[in-house]
Amino acid sequence: MKILFKNATVMALDPSITGEGKFLAVDGDVISYIGDKMPDGDFDRILDCTGKLLTAGFYNSHCHSAMTLFRGYGEDLPLDRWLHEKIFPAEERLTHESIYAGSSLAIAEMIAAGTVSFTDMYEKCEDTAKAVIESGIKANLARAVLSFDPVENMSENIRVKEALTLADEYHGAANGRIKIDMSLHAEYTNTENSARYIGELARDRELIIQLHMSETESEHLACIERHGVTPAEFFLKCGVFDVPVSAAHCVWVTDSDMKIMAEKGVTAVHNPVSNLKLGSGVMPLRRMLDAGVNVALGTDGASSNNMLDIVSEMRIAAILHKGVSRRADETRACEMYPLLTLNGARSQGRDDCGEIAVGKKADIVLINTDTVSTIPSYSLDATFAYSVKSSDVYMTMVDGNVLYENGEYKTIDIEKVKYNFKEVQQHYFD
Amino acid sequence: MKILFKNATVMALDPSITGEGKFLAVDGDVISYIGDKMPDGDFDRILDCTGKLLTAGFYNSHCHSAMTLFRGYGEDLPLDRWLHEKIFPAEERLTHESIYAGSSLAIAEMIAAGTVSFTDMYEKCEDTAKAVIESGIKANLARAVLSFDPVENMSENIRVKEALTLADEYHGAANGRIKIDMSLHAEYTNTENSARYIGELARDRELIIQLHMSETESEHLACIERHGVTPAEFFLKCGVFDVPVSAAHCVWVTDSDMKIMAEKGVTAVHNPVSNLKLGSGVMPLRRMLDAGVNVALGTDGASSNNMLDIVSEMRIAAILHKGVSRRADETRACEMYPLLTLNGARSQGRDDCGEIAVGKKADIVLINTDTVSTIPSYSLDATFAYSVKSSDVYMTMVDGNVLYENGEYKTIDIEKVKYNFKEVQQHYFD
Repeated sequence: MKILFKNATVMALDPSITGEGKFLAVDGDVISYIGDKMPDGDFDRILDCTGKLLTAGFYNSHCHSAMTLFRGYGEDLPLDRWLHEKIFPAEERLTHESIYAGSSLAIAEMIAAGTVSFTDMYEKCEDTAKAVIESGIKANLARAVLSFDPVENMSENIRVKEALTLADEYHGAANGRIKIDMSLHAEYTNTENSARYIGELARDRELIIQLHMSETESEHLACIERHGVTPAEFFLKCGVFDVPVSAAHCVWVTDSDMKIMAEKGVTAVHNPVSNLKLGSGVMPLRRMLDAGVNVALGTDGASSNNMLDIVSEMRIAAILHKGVSRRADETRACEMYPLLTLNGARSQGRDDCGEIAVGKKADIVLINTDTVSTIPSYSLDATFAYSVKSSDVYMTMVDGNVLYENGEYKTIDIEKVKYNFKEVQQHYFD
Repeated sequence: MKILFKNATVMALDPSITGEGKFLAVDGDVISYIGDKMPDGDFDRILDCTGKLLTAGFYNSHCHSAMTLFRGYGEDLPLDRWLHEKIFPAEERLTHESIYAGSSLAIAEMIAAGTVSFTDMYEKCEDTAKAVIESGIKANLARAVLSFDPVENMSENIRVKEALTLADEYHGAANGRIKIDMSLHAEYTNTENSARYIGELARDRELIIQLHMSETESEHLACIERHGVTPAEFFLKCGVFDVPVSAAHCVWVTDSDMKIMAEKGVTAVHNPVSNLKLGSGVMPLRRMLDAGVNVALGTDGASSNNMLDIVSEMRIAAILHKGVSRRADETRACEMYPLLTLNGARSQGRDDCGEIAVGKKADIVLINTDTVSTIPSYSLDATFAYSVKSSDVYMTMVDGNVLYENGEYKTIDIEKVKYNFKEVQQHYFD
C-alpha cells in the first residue's frame, strides 16, 4: 500500500522537515518521502491534509491497560489505601477474559487519542497481546514480578515463569509490533535477590526492564530506611540499570538519582495526572530534562487517571510545572513533542520509530487544527502543547495501516469491544 | 416548544432527582417536570437519552472571550511580561470587528463544551453582546475599568462612561440572557478613589462587580506595601464588597481574606489552568470551600489557557489540589459539579438558573457516557469529575433552545464564524 499525504503541516524534530504544504509518502510500513514537491509514482490513496497537522505517533509509556475495568473504582483514596483496600482485592479476581476485555477497551481509547504504542505492566499479558495483535497498535508488555522472600528461588517464581513464557511466545510478534519486557513491579515489592535475578535475566535475553520507582515519598524514604540507599541507587547496585530501564513516576528521585539515570540511559516516565490524583506529588521535570534523562509520558492505568488520553497528559505536563515552580518559562511548549514521540520510542527500544523521517516506520497522527479551539496558531509548538485535544485527532496510523480515521475504527469492531467489556465488567463485582 | 428527555441519567444537586431512567420535560424556557414516569401531555420533541448523562449547564465564570485572537501569542512568559510586552500592545489595536470575531469564536468553543453562560471582562463589550445575542448563550459582560490618577473625576473616565452606556443598552437584554456587570480590573490598576466610585455605582444600579484579585504573589504583596492591607481588605474598605462581587483567581488570598469573602458573599473564581500556565500558583481550593466561600470555575482568556474548555478546567481542578497538597482526599469528586453549575449561576446573580429542578431555566447539558473513555461508571460523581471530556458533550440547551447537538451548531453558522475570525486575525499583526 502506497499512501500520499499532501498539503500537510508537518511537525517533526528536524526543523528542516517541519512546516506547511508538505508531501509525505508512505510505502508499506515506512515513510518513503518527505518534501515540498509532489513525489513521482502511483499511490493507492492520496489524502489532502489541509487544515491538519501531521506528527509522529504518540507513545503512552506507562500503562496498565486492563485496569479500565477499575476506572472510577475506589476514588479519592491515597495510593496505599487505594491499592490495598480496593485494587489488590479486585485484581485477585481477574480472569483471562477480563484482561482481554479491559485491554481491548483501553486500546480503543488510546488509538482515538493518537497513541501508536504503549508500555504495559500487568498480568495475563498474553490476553493483552491478543488485543494488541487484533487492533494493529504496538506495545511493550511485561508481566509484573513481585517477590517478598529474600531467599526465594526466582526460577520457581510463578510470575517469572509467566514472564519467560510470554517472552518466548510474543517477543517480536506481529512483525515486531509486540515486544516483551521484563519487569520488577517496584523496589518495595521486591528484594535484592529478585532485583538481581531480573537484571541478569533481562541482560541475558537483551530485554528492557519496566518498573515503578520513587512514586510516593513514603516509598522512597522506606527504601532508604531498608537499604540505606534510594530506589534508583538500589536498582543500580543490583545491576538492574545495566539493561535499558523504563522507570515510571520518579516523583521523589534526587539530583544524584537523575545523574545515575542519565548515565545509565534509564527513561523516566512522567505520569502527571496519576501522580496528582493519588496525591503522590509532582515529578521534577525541569531538573530531569536538564540532567539529560530521557523523559517520556504515561497515563498510568485508567483507575488512577481516569483517562488513557496521552494528549491531555501532555497539556497538563506543559502547564503543571510552570504553576508549581511559579515560573512561566519553567518548561517551554517546544519541549513537549519529544516526550510524546521519540522519547517514548526510545524507552521501548524502537529505534526505527518515533520520528517523522524517511526510513522510519509510518507511525503517524493527523490532527485537526482548523477547529474553534485551535485557531489561531502563532506557533506550531504552542498549538500542539496547549490547544490540541485528543478529540482533534483525525487519524492514527501504525506501520502504514490506518487504525482510526475521522471517528471510525478501522481494525476494531468498537461496538463488540464495548459489549464484551460491559459483559465482563457487569459480572465482575457480583 | 415542549421537549421531553426520556431514559436520562440525571445528575443534580438534589439527590432525590439524581439517578437513572428519568423523564425531564421542558416547557418553553423552563424545566416543567422531572420524574420516574412519563409525564402527560404532547411534546414537540422526545429525545431518548439512553447512554447519556443529563446535567445542569456549565458556567465559565471568568473569561475574556475576544482574547481568542491572542491564543498562543506570547507563550511561556510570566504574567507581567506577557501583559506588558505582548498583550497590552496587541490590545491597543483592537477594533469592534475584532472583538466581535474573537467573541464569536470563543462562544462557539464554549457552547461545544457545554457552557450555557460566561462571565466576561473586556472592552467594546457591545460587540461581545452582539455575538451573545446571536448565539443564544448567556453572559455577564463588564467593561474593565482602570484608573491610575488618585484624584481622577471618575464620571469623566472613558471606561466608566462606556460601562454605563453598556448597562443602559444591554442589561437584561435578550430576555435576560445578557446581564451587564460593573468592573474594577484589579487593585493594582485602580485607586481607592476609583474603587469607591465603582462600588457606589454598582450599589446604586444593583449591579455585580467583576474584578481580578490576588492573582500573583507580587500583586498581592505590592497591595500590602501600597495600602497596608490585602487586596480583599482594600476592596472591603472601599465598599466594593457591599455589592455582589465575582473575584477572579484569588490564588494568594489569606484565611482572613476568605472569611471576609464568605461573609460578604464574594465569589472566588478558580482558574487553575491560567494560574498554572502563567506561573501564578495554585489557589487554596480546600480552605476556600471550608471557609464557605462560593467558588466557581473559569478558563480565563484563551491566551492564557489556551482552551475555553470548562470541562477540562474542572478535571484539572479535581486532580490538582490532591497532588499539590499530597492528599488524595483533599477534594472529592462530588465537590466538582456545583463549581461548574450552581456556584457559577450564583456568581452571575441568576437565581433561576444553575440547577436541574422544576421551575428553573432549561439550561441543560447532555453528555455521552457510553464511550470508550467513560465506561465503566461506578459512581456518577467520579465519571463526571474524572472521565468526562468536552468532546463527550452531546447537547447544550439554553432557555429551552438547543444551541449545539451531536457536533452541530444550531444557532451559529460555524463556517462563517471561523471565516470572519481568520479574516480579522490574519490582518491583526500586519
